[in-house]
Amino acid sequence: MTVSRTICLGFLTVIAVGTILLMMPFSTSDGSWNDPIVALFTSTSAVCVTGLSVVDPGTYFSFWGQLFILLLAQIGGLGYMTTTTFLITLIGRKFNLRQKIAIQQALDRPGMSDSTQVLRSIIATTLIFEITGTFLLLPAFVPEYGWDQGLWLAIFHSINAWNNAGFSLFKDNLIGYQSSYLVVFTITGLIILGGIGYQVILEAYLWLRDRLLKRTTNLVFSLDFKVATSTTLILLFIGVIAFFAIETRNPETFGSLNLRGQLLLAWFQSVTPRTAGFNTIDIGKMTTAGLFITIAMMFIGASPGGTGGGMKTTTLRVLTSCTKTILQGKEEVLLYERKIAVSLILKAVGVVVGSVGMVIFSTILIALTDPKLDFIQILFEVVSAFATVGLSTGITGSVSIAAKLILIVTMYVGRVGVLLLMAAVLGDPRPTRIHYPEENLLVG
Amino acid sequence: MTVSRTICLGFLTVIAVGTILLMMPFSTSDGSWNDPIVALFTSTSAVCVTGLSVVDPGTYFSFWGQLFILLLAQIGGLGYMTTTTFLITLIGRKFNLRQKIAIQQALDRPGMSDSTQVLRSIIATTLIFEITGTFLLLPAFVPEYGWDQGLWLAIFHSINAWNNAGFSLFKDNLIGYQSSYLVVFTITGLIILGGIGYQVILEAYLWLRDRLLKRTTNLVFSLDFKVATSTTLILLFIGVIAFFAIETRNPETFGSLNLRGQLLLAWFQSVTPRTAGFNTIDIGKMTTAGLFITIAMMFIGASPGGTGGGMKTTTLRVLTSCTKTILQGKEEVLLYERKIAVSLILKAVGVVVGSVGMVIFSTILIALTDPKLDFIQILFEVVSAFATVGLSTGITGSVSIAAKLILIVTMYVGRVGVLLLMAAVLGDPRPTRIHYPEENLLVG
Ligand SMILES: [K+]
Ligand SMILES: [K+]
Repeated sequence: MTVSRTICLGFLTVIAVGTILLMMPFSTSDGSWNDPIVALFTSTSAVCVTGLSVVDPGTYFSFWGQLFILLLAQIGGLGYMTTTTFLITLIGRKFNLRQKIAIQQALDRPGMSDSTQVLRSIIATTLIFEITGTFLLLPAFVPEYGWDQGLWLAIFHSINAWNNAGFSLFKDNLIGYQSSYLVVFTITGLIILGGIGYQVILEAYLWLRDRLLKRTTNLVFSLDFKVATSTTLILLFIGVIAFFAIETRNPETFGSLNLRGQLLLAWFQSVTPRTAGFNTIDIGKMTTAGLFITIAMMFIGASPGGTGGGMKTTTLRVLTSCTKTILQGKEEVLLYERKIAVSLILKAVGVVVGSVGMVIFSTILIALTDPKLDFIQILFEVVSAFATVGLSTGITGSVSIAAKLILIVTMYVGRVGVLLLMAAVLGDPRPTRIHYPEENLLVG
Repeated sequence: MTVSRTICLGFLTVIAVGTILLMMPFSTSDGSWNDPIVALFTSTSAVCVTGLSVVDPGTYFSFWGQLFILLLAQIGGLGYMTTTTFLITLIGRKFNLRQKIAIQQALDRPGMSDSTQVLRSIIATTLIFEITGTFLLLPAFVPEYGWDQGLWLAIFHSINAWNNAGFSLFKDNLIGYQSSYLVVFTITGLIILGGIGYQVILEAYLWLRDRLLKRTTNLVFSLDFKVATSTTLILLFIGVIAFFAIETRNPETFGSLNLRGQLLLAWFQSVTPRTAGFNTIDIGKMTTAGLFITIAMMFIGASPGGTGGGMKTTTLRVLTSCTKTILQGKEEVLLYERKIAVSLILKAVGVVVGSVGMVIFSTILIALTDPKLDFIQILFEVVSAFATVGLSTGITGSVSIAAKLILIVTMYVGRVGVLLLMAAVLGDPRPTRIHYPEENLLVG
């Protein structure tokens, strides 16, 4: 079986197992057999680390149901990291010689490309951050809910934040903690680091270690590192400015708070579309402009190799660099003085075409099954599902069963990736050596 | 002055002259000085062959006002063709040797690339189609409105259809003629041929002449021809099926008519987003799904070298071919067994990035200036303005002055093209010969 098919079927298998577990009477809080659609939706949402939910997970599911959701989200989140990293080693990620030497020197061990070791390192990173996050959240939850419930809440939200899964056990998500520095910065920290990609964290760790040990190495940051960190920072900055400028005049979201509270909200709303799915304001009450900006940010999504979804920050940068290149009349696309291969540009175009196509298709279908909904609510929900974000204007639970099934498919397609899914369906590419004559074409 | 600056300033000049003419008392039907915003909006809409209107042109403007609109639309429409053709000869359109010989043999004259002759040929084509259109429309308008008014209506709508300008002198646009075969097929024929590009019409003419004269030439259809015609046909087919499937259940648009009338409506609604702007149903009454499909079709737009706007059919095909290529694991992007140059792919990406950016930017601004509007109404209006379509859900006249100014800018940017405008602002590209090392990047 091809790699792409293995991945696609692997996710389907985990979703199926999760659905069966969540259908069991011990998974629901009232002890009855669960509605199959609710179980399927929740399992898909968890495995795809989306966080959209047709029910309130905190009251609908028993402790066991909540634990299954957490495990499914952890498998899904680890899946993101390991799958991507596995694929990288598989396609033979091309470091240049200087980088390879630098990385190996920094690691002090030449066996870096050994996949078992990479996997172990990813799991270790995950555990370190999730445990740290849990400890940081304890002071926020234990005083109010006691040790038993408080610890569970801290574990649940820490793991959900790191994996960008976005399930919350609070009825109003994290709105109750909108002004808590501790909760806001712990959660956003986990979201950003979990979503920025394992490669980036590894490089930052190596750099930091060398600085602390005052070692002199010629460690060169990879292009992935530079693009992921710079794009994430730019998007966060734009987001904070935009949400602050737009929503402060909206009394139902930012308006009632003081300046410090508004900045905290703007920060959280800027982080969460990349692609966490937690919210500290009522998304359904946002202005049209705020919702549309959120949709755009959700669609861009996180960085590759992390736990987040979307079309990815790197894809965006490749496309904007193409635009810059054509405006400068050049032929070589550059990013940080590195040439971008044509195949990479084609892949970026493919990702965007496939993603836009899928979003348009799902949006039209839901517009047909649920014609009473506002267009922006449908588009918001579809992009949220596709980019595995999990934010919602509040319609998830009330849409028709057909729309729920469409959202389930959208989450799955968005999770495995349009290109990977197509490759799984069409079979592996067979390269050809025939060359064709070139011809010009009028474009744009 | 650079070519891009000449074009940008040229359009601004025509818009300014048009605004002054439309402000004059003899341009309005009540003989008073016109509102500057109305004059500016109408002049921009006419020169950019958009057809969006903040007033009802049939009653608001005098005969002279209507004539100015027609002349501005004609200048704008010819501008599309000549500007593009001029640019093609300027950038030294690369025909391969076989094509060049074939074209020259077909034309029986080697001076084909002479721009004066091309211009003359474009004007002749325009006149032939506009006059034919006028004659075909006469039987529809003269019986009802008499010779004077009927002739004027025929001329006005024929010229507007060919130039994809979309202004109508009827209060309800062409809804009154939704079941008239003559009007529907004359108008849609003009729209399609005007929007498909001069190059395509020329090649079709040469092919037809050779067939009729039973001459044997080795005329090879250009890639432009193949891509423009096939994509136009595919989109029209999809449009008819989609609108028929969706809107037949909507009693306010298709529902009240019989099957033949519904097919005629589906055909017209499928043609008009590419990018004519006439309508035979009340756009504001369409379903959400129908509106969204129309938005997508408007954004794609017409073929380059014609009178239509949008991101262009060829751009879409280059992008879908890139997607196909990456799925097949190839490096060379092919269209009809011709290789697409990397610079062309970059241009296509640039067009899409610029267009999407502009649409998002304008949409957010109008969502801020007019927060009470439905999101889909705003998006529809902005895409309609940007792709110079002219369809509207009916809000054009009632939006705030700020929103009107945003729409004016959007029409202008959409008309001259984001890339051309950027080139005009940034100055001409200065190619460099420095080569950079290549580096891989995680995408999507
Ligand atoms: K999520
Ligand atoms: K138009």
